[in-house]
Amino acid sequence: MAVYTPVPAEALEQFLARYETGTLLSAKGIAEGVSNSNFLIETTTERFILTLYEERTDLSELPYFIALMEHMASAGLPVPRPLRDKSGNALQTVEGKAACLIQFLPGVSVSQPTQAQARAAGAALAKLHLAGADFALVRRNGLSLPWWQATAKDLAPRLDEIAPGLSGRVAEGIKTVSAHWPNNLPTGTIHADLFPDNVLMLGDRVTGLIDFYFACTDLLAYDLAVLHAAWAFPLDGNAPLPGHEAALFEGYEAIRPLSRAERHAFAVLGQGAALRFLLSRAQDWLAPHSDALVQRKDPLPFARRLDHYARLA
Amino acid sequence: MAVYTPVPAEALEQFLARYETGTLLSAKGIAEGVSNSNFLIETTTERFILTLYEERTDLSELPYFIALMEHMASAGLPVPRPLRDKSGNALQTVEGKAACLIQFLPGVSVSQPTQAQARAAGAALAKLHLAGADFALVRRNGLSLPWWQATAKDLAPRLDEIAPGLSGRVAEGIKTVSAHWPNNLPTGTIHADLFPDNVLMLGDRVTGLIDFYFACTDLLAYDLAVLHAAWAFPLDGNAPLPGHEAALFEGYEAIRPLSRAERHAFAVLGQGAALRFLLSRAQDWLAPHSDALVQRKDPLPFARRLDHYARLA
Repeated sequence: MAVYTPVPAEALEQFLARYETGTLLSAKGIAEGVSNSNFLIETTTERFILTLYEERTDLSELPYFIALMEHMASAGLPVPRPLRDKSGNALQTVEGKAACLIQFLPGVSVSQPTQAQARAAGAALAKLHLAGADFALVRRNGLSLPWWQATAKDLAPRLDEIAPGLSGRVAEGIKTVSAHWPNNLPTGTIHADLFPDNVLMLGDRVTGLIDFYFACTDLLAYDLAVLHAAWAFPLDGNAPLPGHEAALFEGYEAIRPLSRAERHAFAVLGQGAALRFLLSRAQDWLAPHSDALVQRKDPLPFARRLDHYARLA
Repeated sequence: MAVYTPVPAEALEQFLARYETGTLLSAKGIAEGVSNSNFLIETTTERFILTLYEERTDLSELPYFIALMEHMASAGLPVPRPLRDKSGNALQTVEGKAACLIQFLPGVSVSQPTQAQARAAGAALAKLHLAGADFALVRRNGLSLPWWQATAKDLAPRLDEIAPGLSGRVAEGIKTVSAHWPNNLPTGTIHADLFPDNVLMLGDRVTGLIDFYFACTDLLAYDLAVLHAAWAFPLDGNAPLPGHEAALFEGYEAIRPLSRAERHAFAVLGQGAALRFLLSRAQDWLAPHSDALVQRKDPLPFARRLDHYARLA
């Protein structure tokens, strides 16, 4: 939610000269994402987002993310294309930071999706899954079951500071997903974080799928469970909105029908998705020097989702 | 440097319906200014900056700033025009905050102005001064001599924490400006903060004068002293760049020649300008709960400018 590394206009002009994309007309630092610096840049020919990857980013993973965005854009999905400079390089260095100039896409992120928007998001995710089938690179999901187990254990002594009983509730959830996590479902490239924040829309139309920095290779149906956790509930995380829930599945299955095994596993996949965001938010919440620049998000709405998915089982 | 008040896309869409300006295509929170929330907004017809005025803004002063920007834009200066809604109102409420939708202007803020850019900035300031002659509203300069005196007194016990001897140096400066501050020079509407940050340029051309939230009625030549302090020195504040200095004056005087009295007062006006920024930066520097969102600026380059202007006297 901030610009950590300022980039002087003079440096930007020099940087843009590496590309065939006109000269600089405007540059504004934008509050996008939580851990990188982003600039909305306009040249005489186009608009771009320039991302500078800050300390929290593992630089060795950037080629995966850049290749994935290129792959998806080339497949015709509304994914911003990383630009290659005159020498063919997408990955750059700006002000001493790894950086990438990325296509700007129009659209806004909705806060309270409608059913029609949930349907469109479901369809967009399914298209992403189909287009990922011939993406060659693989990345392990670093925020999957082993991370949930380890993080739940780390945070156990302090989870009740967030809400009484949370520690026990998380331990129970971990026990369930550890015992029942499916290992026989279709895998592929997943976004793993497709919250409304990361979907640009114009009306009911998806115009952008962004922020691929959690993308990885994992169960496709887990990605749908993340989407469900993110789109099918009111903001407080209480009971899901039935119309939204139906629309998400309809949208997804119109493009990629779920197998019986995937449907059957939905309750445990949902518990996994709820735990993943409950735990990352709890970790930020309890961090000793919580970065004032990062707005902490309440973990509890994901405890309520966890309860919901547990009741489905 | 941050967005303090998030505005959901749905609320933005409703807000834009008050204007005749098409529908929302894109909205990004931008890191502009230090105390307000700003969004770069694109509709089907135009681009705008939406500013939400946060706690540090005195709401009673907004009509002055809005009227001034309208006046300057109507006079043909590259000043962003505040938009009026279908009912003729420029001042709005968005998410409970006072707000204004303002024209977007192209251009970038340079970090290290060239001589040609300094000349253009001098000319732009002189045009602002001429155009202000028939602006009817008056606003007292809240950051002038009485504020310097009071703030220097408040901070005196702690200034040496910033640099040994700074307290004595400031006291000496205050003594000089208190004894010699001119009261017979032409007054008018001044920008009072025309640093390179607040000037948008394309090459050597000024395309935007922005951030009028310190504008007030005061000595015109004091505004030129602020411009000199901001544009004619290297970033460390050591000896001014003679070419830049000459270019600034040439640019200004090509539009509005200085009187002999204004020229004569330049050393004391410069000391005032240096004290104004030295003291506001020192205040931020020493603030007990220095807001982590505001990047603190080093006061010392303005102590060096103070020394420079004192040597001119």
